[in-house]
Amino acid sequence: MKKFLILLFLSPLAFFVNAQNAIIKQTITSKILKEDREIWMALPKNYHDSIAQKDSYPVIYLLDPEINFEYLTAITYFMSKQPYAQIPEAIIVGITNTDRTRDFTPSKASIRHPFIENKTLFDNSGHLNNFLLFLKEELKPFIHQHYRTSSYNIIIGHSFGGLATIYCFLKHPEYFNAYVAHDPSIWWDNNLLTRKQKNTQFSQASYNKKILFISAANNPADEKDWIRDHKMAIDSFNLFFNNNPRTFDYKYSYYNDEHHGSISLPANYEALKYIFRGFETNFRKSNENPDKYIIQPYKSLSNRIGSPISPTRSYIQQLMLFALKKNDTASASFFKKMMK
Amino acid sequence: MKKFLILLFLSPLAFFVNAQNAIIKQTITSKILKEDREIWMALPKNYHDSIAQKDSYPVIYLLDPEINFEYLTAITYFMSKQPYAQIPEAIIVGITNTDRTRDFTPSKASIRHPFIENKTLFDNSGHLNNFLLFLKEELKPFIHQHYRTSSYNIIIGHSFGGLATIYCFLKHPEYFNAYVAHDPSIWWDNNLLTRKQKNTQFSQASYNKKILFISAANNPADEKDWIRDHKMAIDSFNLFFNNNPRTFDYKYSYYNDEHHGSISLPANYEALKYIFRGFETNFRKSNENPDKYIIQPYKSLSNRIGSPISPTRSYIQQLMLFALKKNDTASASFFKKMMK
Repeated sequence: MKKFLILLFLSPLAFFVNAQNAIIKQTITSKILKEDREIWMALPKNYHDSIAQKDSYPVIYLLDPEINFEYLTAITYFMSKQPYAQIPEAIIVGITNTDRTRDFTPSKASIRHPFIENKTLFDNSGHLNNFLLFLKEELKPFIHQHYRTSSYNIIIGHSFGGLATIYCFLKHPEYFNAYVAHDPSIWWDNNLLTRKQKNTQFSQASYNKKILFISAANNPADEKDWIRDHKMAIDSFNLFFNNNPRTFDYKYSYYNDEHHGSISLPANYEALKYIFRGFETNFRKSNENPDKYIIQPYKSLSNRIGSPISPTRSYIQQLMLFALKKNDTASASFFKKMMK
Repeated sequence: MKKFLILLFLSPLAFFVNAQNAIIKQTITSKILKEDREIWMALPKNYHDSIAQKDSYPVIYLLDPEINFEYLTAITYFMSKQPYAQIPEAIIVGITNTDRTRDFTPSKASIRHPFIENKTLFDNSGHLNNFLLFLKEELKPFIHQHYRTSSYNIIIGHSFGGLATIYCFLKHPEYFNAYVAHDPSIWWDNNLLTRKQKNTQFSQASYNKKILFISAANNPADEKDWIRDHKMAIDSFNLFFNNNPRTFDYKYSYYNDEHHGSISLPANYEALKYIFRGFETNFRKSNENPDKYIIQPYKSLSNRIGSPISPTRSYIQQLMLFALKKNDTASASFFKKMMK
C-alpha cells in the first residue's frame, strides 16, 4: 500500500515547472476584412526550448478573448502538464474584436434598442461569411506558416461567438476539427441555425470524426420571456441531433449552476476534457509495457479524432527518466529511441 | 422579449476590461521558520487605481502555488468581474515551498522508499505546527499591514496541503474563515486527523460561521490498495461530520471524473462559488430597487460568513452609470452617495 501512496503524493510535484503565462500580441492586416486585427497568442511553455523543436501542437481559435483568453490559457497549461496531462499542449489564438456583431452574425437583423429611444441595435449585422473567410484564407494559413501547428484545429465561441461557431460547423465543417459553442445565440434571426440544420447533409464525409460540443446555461428565472426563446432555440437544435443519425461526435451539456455570463469557464474545461478524452496515459505503469500504456493510447486517440497526435519529446524524456529510476533499462532505451 | 435578449447578449462586453495577470514575487524572512520564504501575490486588477483606494479585499492563502497559482488567479479574475461577478475580488497569496513534507505534516512518520533501496521518505516530516505559527504570526500580519485586506481569510491546500489545511481547522479554527482541502491526505500517520476530529469540540464559538470545503477524487482503479486507504480515510472523516451536530458550514464534494492530480482546478472553482454563494447581485434590476437588489444581498452574505463585505466603488460606479442610462436619476443619485 505504502509505495502507491508515496507515488501518488510525491511524484507530481517533482515534475511541475512554473513559468508565468506569456501573451503574444500581434497585428494581422486582413484584405478580406479590410482592417487590422489584433491576435493574442499563448504557446506551450517550453515551445522555444531545444527539446520541443520537433513537436507540433493543436491550435485553439478563441473568439472573445477579451473575456476568455486569460483563464483559458491558464486552464490549458494546468490540464496539459505532464506526466498527468489530460489534454495535449496547445497553441491558443485569441481573435480580439473590432465589431463582434458584424463578424459573428450570419444574417442582417437589426432591432429597436430596449430603453434608448430612436436607437436600433445590430444595424451592422450579417457579415459572418466574411469573417469565416478571414479565418480560413488569412488567419489559419498565417498561424500554420509561422508556428509548429499540428493538423488539429478547435474553434471556441460563446453567445454570439457560439452562433458563429455553429454556423461554421453547419456550412463549413472542413474548416475546423472541433467546434465548441457555449450558450449559443441560436435564437438569432428567427432560429436561422435550426432552419439551416434541417437542410444540412450530416452524412457527408466532411463531418466524419468532427466534434461538436454545445453547452447551455440556466439563466435567471425572473426574465422568463427571453429565457424561453433563448433556451427553446438551443433545445430544439439539440433535439434534432438526438433524433437523427450522424457520423460526427456530438456532446450537449446543460449547466444547472451557471448562467449566460459564467458558463464559459467550466464548460471550456469540460469541452477540452471531452475532445481529448483518452489522452492521459498511465505514467506510473509506463515502463512495464510502453506499447500498451503509451503507444496504443496515442494511436487510439489519433484514430478517434482523425488527426495524428504524438507524445512530446519532453514527455518521452520524463518517461525515460522514470524507467531509469526504476532500473528498467529496456524501457528507458525504448523511450530514448522514441525521442529521435 | 427582444429587450431582454439585447441586455443579455450585449451588456457584458461593454464592461469587461482586460489586463494580463501580474504576479508579484517577494521574499519574507521568517524568524519562526529560520529561512526566507518566497511569496507570490496577485492583486485585483484595479487595485492601484484611485477608484479602488477605499476598497479592501478578502485574502486567499494558497499552498503549492507552483501548481495552482496561475489558474487560480485567472479563475478568480474571471469569477470576480462585475457586473456579473460570482465572488468578490480577492488578494491571492501563494506560499512557495522549500520543504513541503516538513511544513504540511503534523507528525513525524518516515517510511521506506517504494523502489529505491536503503532510502526512506518523509524523514523531515512533522513540522506543521511551526508552519502554521509562521502563517499566523508573520505572514498574515505582513499581508494585513501592507495591503488593503478585509477581515476574511481563506486557506486552500491540496493533498499534503489539504492535510495541513484540515489540521489547522481542527486545531486553530480562529486562524482562517474558510478552509478548502482537495483530496486531502487524511491517511497520514494512521488517520491522525480522524482521531483528532473525534476529540474536537465543534460546538465552541470559534467554529461559528466558519466554512470547511473538502473535495475527493476518483483515483485510478488499477491501484486499489492505496485508493482504499486514501479514500477510506476521507470517507470516514466526512461521515463523522454527517452524523454529528456542528455550527460551521460544511461541504463535501466528490469528483467522479477527476483524479488526485486533476481535481484541484474544478474543485477550487466550486469551492469559491460555494463560499461566496449569494454574492452575485441582479445588475439588470439594480436601479429598480437598490436596497432589495444591492444592499440586502451584501448584508445577507456578510451575516452568513460573519465578516462585512461591501460592493466596491468600481461596481457602484457601474450601477450608477447603468441607472443613468435608464434615465433613473433617483437610483443614480443613491449609488453616487454610496461611493463616498
